[in-house]
Amino acid sequence: MTLPSTFDKGVLAALGALDASAIHHVFFVACGGSLSIMHPAKFLLDQHAAIASDVYNAAEFVARAPKLLGPGSLVILCSMTGTTKETTAAAEFARSKGATTIGLTVEPGSPLANACDHVVGFEAPYTTGVPIDAVNSNYSRIYQLVMGVVALTGGENLTEPLIESLAALQAAIDKAQLVFAPLFDDYAPRFAKENVVYTVASGASYGAAYSFSICVLMEMQWINSQAIHANEFFHGPFEVLDKDRAFILMKGCDSTRALEDRADTFLHRFGSAQKILVLDAEKLDLDGIYPQFRGNVVPLIFFDTLWRFAYKIAELRKHEMLEARRYMKKISY
Amino acid sequence: MTLPSTFDKGVLAALGALDASAIHHVFFVACGGSLSIMHPAKFLLDQHAAIASDVYNAAEFVARAPKLLGPGSLVILCSMTGTTKETTAAAEFARSKGATTIGLTVEPGSPLANACDHVVGFEAPYTTGVPIDAVNSNYSRIYQLVMGVVALTGGENLTEPLIESLAALQAAIDKAQLVFAPLFDDYAPRFAKENVVYTVASGASYGAAYSFSICVLMEMQWINSQAIHANEFFHGPFEVLDKDRAFILMKGCDSTRALEDRADTFLHRFGSAQKILVLDAEKLDLDGIYPQFRGNVVPLIFFDTLWRFAYKIAELRKHEMLEARRYMKKISY
Repeated sequence: MTLPSTFDKGVLAALGALDASAIHHVFFVACGGSLSIMHPAKFLLDQHAAIASDVYNAAEFVARAPKLLGPGSLVILCSMTGTTKETTAAAEFARSKGATTIGLTVEPGSPLANACDHVVGFEAPYTTGVPIDAVNSNYSRIYQLVMGVVALTGGENLTEPLIESLAALQAAIDKAQLVFAPLFDDYAPRFAKENVVYTVASGASYGAAYSFSICVLMEMQWINSQAIHANEFFHGPFEVLDKDRAFILMKGCDSTRALEDRADTFLHRFGSAQKILVLDAEKLDLDGIYPQFRGNVVPLIFFDTLWRFAYKIAELRKHEMLEARRYMKKISY
Repeated sequence: MTLPSTFDKGVLAALGALDASAIHHVFFVACGGSLSIMHPAKFLLDQHAAIASDVYNAAEFVARAPKLLGPGSLVILCSMTGTTKETTAAAEFARSKGATTIGLTVEPGSPLANACDHVVGFEAPYTTGVPIDAVNSNYSRIYQLVMGVVALTGGENLTEPLIESLAALQAAIDKAQLVFAPLFDDYAPRFAKENVVYTVASGASYGAAYSFSICVLMEMQWINSQAIHANEFFHGPFEVLDKDRAFILMKGCDSTRALEDRADTFLHRFGSAQKILVLDAEKLDLDGIYPQFRGNVVPLIFFDTLWRFAYKIAELRKHEMLEARRYMKKISY
């Protein structure tokens, strides 16, 4: 079994060193925005392999100390800067239990990188302001890891269609920016005035909804929020819906789309279309992306385009996106 | 290996029929409030057994169709009335894949009960208005299932101390009502005026925070909310904190307490003590509950006592707790 030479070199090195037959469990561990990519990674693994996995906040992971953690565990961690203390501690904890650790970070000399058995680099546009190609993003790299593990543990080898799909992703994002731009122009003035904005999604898209909710709306814009699972919506949260309430709904194209569709119908039945921003995968040109991976990469398209929406809102609120923090990295805590 | 005769008869029957050596994975599946008890159940399993498990919303579970689901899976489902369509569909789906299904419900003749291999009954006070003993609650029954599975699969047999602890739980709840009553009297007038109230917890308590957020605050009181994980709080959500923002923090006594403690310190440093309601396990009399299970049962004490707080808020808002719904069970959707 060989992996495509077009795979990231860090991914190839980490997977090359892996004794795949010994891996019985995967732990996806991180905090905040980096944790958000672990949800779609688990979704991809659930779809393709009979390998059990967990997604844990890094501090929860260490304090919980799952009895299952041991030499048969692969622990995949992520921190953009590699300086997230809880994530580094989680890597050290996992290694002390005999697990194999792979750390994703943009900083190869960072504490997280030093704490892991293997390091996979990635690029992030919002740290440097320099546009990147999505094939070099954290999503792309973790998907390569997951489908590599699938192939190495006896599952179907879909690594070639995956890497070809990831290579086509940036073009799809660029086209999506044009598709969603009029929608963002229309909705931004109304959403900029909101005190509460919910996000709704399911399946592969839930992580993107979570990240937009906690890292963009709450952290960067101090707007109250929750990422509501599209079906959980019907078991409590939907009672807050009225004509004034603002929602961002992600309608992806994975196997859970029907859940998001049902939420869409309900939102438009009892809410106001002017306050319900729907990002629909059916509006996207996904040329070059294999059908079997479209549902998996669409959340990254949604999230990437939503940054433009966030910047529009920030401008209207006169609330800086990246500088306006009260606490994060401004004080010690 | 025999289980205590004091275990619930439904639990004993379900576990007695189980080929425990064939079970490799546990899926905890439900919706909304019933899903909230699956989080502490997984926490308990993670602590005591090297058995992998997942917690899924029922519709997500079916649409995702994890490749791991099969004859080696035990699927534990819950719906109070047994009429939750998504949960019944999940039971049918799991059985079609060869999994063993156990359904928890108060209604033995319900669709969920009919769809499962085994049925475990429980009692719920808020359907009938008649007080119950917590040993008959859904929490108690699912904990008996989990620790039974642990014992039957070669883990330590802690079923006796568990059932003795559960038998002592109602007395602890009754005493907790008295401990928290002055706190609720103090905080209710302020919280009744809030448009947004967050809950914060980790570990075994996260499910109770989730349930109070989506089923009580959002569903019953139309108050905006999110159950924030106590460590995720520091990775985005904390930026919404100011002197006016209302939080309910659960400080349990499981292995994640340090995470909740850290959130407590931060909340009081930058928020207003008048707007931060802290339920602290250290204030409780947990007599008769074994130390090793205190962290696991405390969330039920928190949740049960918080109902009183919710009723106080409802009265002040002149917003009925159980009747005031716009959508749930009032219209078809």
